Amino acid sequence: MTATPADAPQSRPTAVTHAVTNQAPPLTGYDAADDPVLLEGVEREGAGGYADDLHRLGRVVGSEEAQHWADQANRHEPELRTHDRYGNRIDEVEFHPAYHRLMDLSVGAGLAGAAWADERPGAHVARAAGFMLAGTLEPGHLCPVSMTYAVVPALRHSPGLAGTYEPLLTSRSYDPGLRAPAGKRGLLAGMGMTEKQGGSDVRANTTTAAELPDGTWRLRGHKWFTSAPMNDLFLVLAQAPGGLSCFLVPRVLPDGSRNTFRIQRLKDKLGNRSNASSEPEFDDTVAWLVGTEGKGVRTIIDMVTMTRLDCVLGSAAGTRAALAQAAHHARHRSVFGATLIDQPLMRNVLADLALESEAATTLGLRLAGAADRARLGDARERAFLRLATAVGKYWVCKRQPAAVAEALECLGGNGYDEASGLPRLYREAPLNSIWEGSGNVSALDLLRALDREPEALEAFCAEIDAAAGGDRRLDAARTALRGELRLTEDAPLRARRVAERAALVLQGSLLVRHAPAAVADAFCASRLAGDQGLAFGTLPPDTDFAGLLTRLPV
Amino acid sequence: MTATPADAPQSRPTAVTHAVTNQAPPLTGYDAADDPVLLEGVEREGAGGYADDLHRLGRVVGSEEAQHWADQANRHEPELRTHDRYGNRIDEVEFHPAYHRLMDLSVGAGLAGAAWADERPGAHVARAAGFMLAGTLEPGHLCPVSMTYAVVPALRHSPGLAGTYEPLLTSRSYDPGLRAPAGKRGLLAGMGMTEKQGGSDVRANTTTAAELPDGTWRLRGHKWFTSAPMNDLFLVLAQAPGGLSCFLVPRVLPDGSRNTFRIQRLKDKLGNRSNASSEPEFDDTVAWLVGTEGKGVRTIIDMVTMTRLDCVLGSAAGTRAALAQAAHHARHRSVFGATLIDQPLMRNVLADLALESEAATTLGLRLAGAADRARLGDARERAFLRLATAVGKYWVCKRQPAAVAEALECLGGNGYDEASGLPRLYREAPLNSIWEGSGNVSALDLLRALDREPEALEAFCAEIDAAAGGDRRLDAARTALRGELRLTEDAPLRARRVAERAALVLQGSLLVRHAPAAVADAFCASRLAGDQGLAFGTLPPDTDFAGLLTRLPV
Repeated sequence: MTATPADAPQSRPTAVTHAVTNQAPPLTGYDAADDPVLLEGVEREGAGGYADDLHRLGRVVGSEEAQHWADQANRHEPELRTHDRYGNRIDEVEFHPAYHRLMDLSVGAGLAGAAWADERPGAHVARAAGFMLAGTLEPGHLCPVSMTYAVVPALRHSPGLAGTYEPLLTSRSYDPGLRAPAGKRGLLAGMGMTEKQGGSDVRANTTTAAELPDGTWRLRGHKWFTSAPMNDLFLVLAQAPGGLSCFLVPRVLPDGSRNTFRIQRLKDKLGNRSNASSEPEFDDTVAWLVGTEGKGVRTIIDMVTMTRLDCVLGSAAGTRAALAQAAHHARHRSVFGATLIDQPLMRNVLADLALESEAATTLGLRLAGAADRARLGDARERAFLRLATAVGKYWVCKRQPAAVAEALECLGGNGYDEASGLPRLYREAPLNSIWEGSGNVSALDLLRALDREPEALEAFCAEIDAAAGGDRRLDAARTALRGELRLTEDAPLRARRVAERAALVLQGSLLVRHAPAAVADAFCASRLAGDQGLAFGTLPPDTDFAGLLTRLPV
Repeated sequence: MTATPADAPQSRPTAVTHAVTNQAPPLTGYDAADDPVLLEGVEREGAGGYADDLHRLGRVVGSEEAQHWADQANRHEPELRTHDRYGNRIDEVEFHPAYHRLMDLSVGAGLAGAAWADERPGAHVARAAGFMLAGTLEPGHLCPVSMTYAVVPALRHSPGLAGTYEPLLTSRSYDPGLRAPAGKRGLLAGMGMTEKQGGSDVRANTTTAAELPDGTWRLRGHKWFTSAPMNDLFLVLAQAPGGLSCFLVPRVLPDGSRNTFRIQRLKDKLGNRSNASSEPEFDDTVAWLVGTEGKGVRTIIDMVTMTRLDCVLGSAAGTRAALAQAAHHARHRSVFGATLIDQPLMRNVLADLALESEAATTLGLRLAGAADRARLGDARERAFLRLATAVGKYWVCKRQPAAVAEALECLGGNGYDEASGLPRLYREAPLNSIWEGSGNVSALDLLRALDREPEALEAFCAEIDAAAGGDRRLDAARTALRGELRLTEDAPLRARRVAERAALVLQGSLLVRHAPAAVADAFCASRLAGDQGLAFGTLPPDTDFAGLLTRLPV
């Protein structure tokens, strides 16, 4: 599965004073979907019929051309144009052509809203797998893609608006530019929730909404972190007379005139640099109410639930992309007389990362399977998703920075050089744990679900109990977890411990049932029975390292 | 200890559509040395007499002006000038004035070679504490500072060269520019070890050295990661007829002409961007042998030992700087009706980070104390340092990315914005674990020390045994560690486990003896007895959180 180009750069002398040897060739020209962990999960969650589509996408993702788009889209960052040459306020963001190629690829592959128009079982699993593949290529452009996917269930709170816009949000056509929505071949959606003074505490929002006699609303205020401001439609929270409410804000009004959406600046973000994240201000901005006045959080949470799922998928993808680079390097680099991947300590590091990555990918696909079955009416899967999304968002996203840092270190000094691509993965790594609710918000959200939704806990326990008897360490961990899930007075103090253990037990349950014995055994020994260190590369010496290394993505 | 400027930005309205409130003020105008963990460690390791110097430096580090230098030096990166306007090759790097201010500050504070000219006990501890303070401000400029500190013991392998250059390497004058060394008020040193094909495996070096009849040598070849190329002198490894040897390479020859030092490019590094890291080529480059021909590694290791110590100090500083920002934010930000620092789960996160940071800082200062006493002739401390440096380099550096990512997340979306300063700390975080030998190299170096230097193990055990009876969990961990330290056949596979446990037991031993009960107890419960998760914020609920939060740096 490894790329070994005939003309690897080390075969040509490149400098006068020395020859360049023993450097890995670039990892290109492969099928990123040719990954056992991904394909088995897709099959298991009911999307085996979409395998050809995934391989088609995987070959693009693994191509030199697409990797060049990813690089360019991050080096040539979006630029804010507040005014045109004549001094007219325009509030536009200009993207590099490579960004548009990436958007065209992902929207065309149906990673935006298209799955909502596909009634077949497995459609949302295939979309999740595609989202992960595209995420290994370039995560920044997936922000608008994810929001467009996620907006559909929230918009359905207002059937009239959904009837108008859903056909265009589920399109596979990427049709950029600020024009009247009705005239476009496809639409993209975004959201504006947090404000400067509030962050996660959206009830502290100060943006106001006032209703006009014609039934439309006018917004005044600001948002602090509104990404992809060139999207067509935004769900925005604002204070109406009846309380915090959800509104649909178009960039361009139906008559073709521009709505007021004053972009103050773009964020200078650590990573995710292909994606524009803006600070907009609203002043007499036209909006339409979505859902019930005063129930804004209840409405928009149906969008946030889906973007949180995408955070899990994105972190699983980012971790796997970094692992692929580390494994590829280790296969091609010799040190102290042996290839890196054959050296015991490096094997322990790569095997530990492979284990972490398989657990993350498997959990992500399980959540996608639940989402798929929930939209087809499976109430138990919906209940499971409620709790498991909080748990997965906490844990898979939390682990990404440490895992990617470890993969980066596998390349030594080369890994610290932006040219290697690892720095881009590392800069991206903390983001999924922050947006859509930081780690503490996720952990406390788990407590809320435990408190208010007994059916969610029941479905979660049924899921982990499905592996009963499969491994004695997992059995012990399941029993212990039940005690930890009790909402004692000190639960908020314990919330991260509980979320972590719940995630590990869930991952263990999935791996014991579905993964090869080498994987399940190593997971139970290290993550559940504690025979490991705090850092990666600390699996017990009797681990089946060779078995784990067959699960690498490349 | 917290900065609370009267004119915090939230007191002024800044936008038409809304007021900006509930944002933390910048953390400026404080004394960074006013930190209990740092001051107690300095006193304990015998440098209490230098406290006034440290407070003087701490006030500069905490000033708005110096923080502005740090920001500018990283935004306005060094630029390579390969040729002058006439086409002459010059191989110079131009730095922003702010970088020179930082260099002037740190060299002036004696953080480069000055401690070697200070015979008083504690001089190297004070230097280490100062290095940590400067490291909380801006780590990039400390690379040349560290190498200048570290070169002195290696250069002493050739007393003639040491006699000529040591007086200028121990100067407190920062005198930049490519000029003949003898005419300068102070010199800076660097090193060139790794090459493209070899990395850590320096025995694979292809750079050659040939001796001339006058006793000087000529080098031909390249280096792959040579930082601070505007420094005056470099220790460089090259293949002499008698084997790999260490050479001194000046940028400018004694007659004022330039030596050949062709800088191909500067690295586009993830972080550490104020520091220039170059790829030089040597061609008929003049060099002088340092130490014995064929014993290059044995010579340069005396430099590497000291830079590895500085990696530990740098990681402790970077972790503490991030913690300071997180704590400051949590004190000034209210969410859901309460200040963040008063919310149980955030308290668990901050307390856990404070614990990690105290353990790192305490270990760093203990190593500096050992270095201080070793240079005054204490053989036991020298033996302890041999093993403890490998352990500390592995662990303190390994933990930095995860700890800084967690601190960054404490600021939510604001933390992901470069303007917050956290991204700079996060981008820096993986570096210390990579350069001067990556994590695997450090862990395997521990095995080498165990194999070859029984007196190092003896000194290490004596150190951890000094806490015997202080805590039963530590006692159990000490006993278990002895078993793990045995060099069984699978030792390379276990090397990270062993290094991690050795580091934790050493940190536990120090904290049990010297830290407040809240700190020692939480450390033993979580790090030694395993009552914690893999992520931060998972201390047991009966932890003395209030006690831990008194140990915050601000």
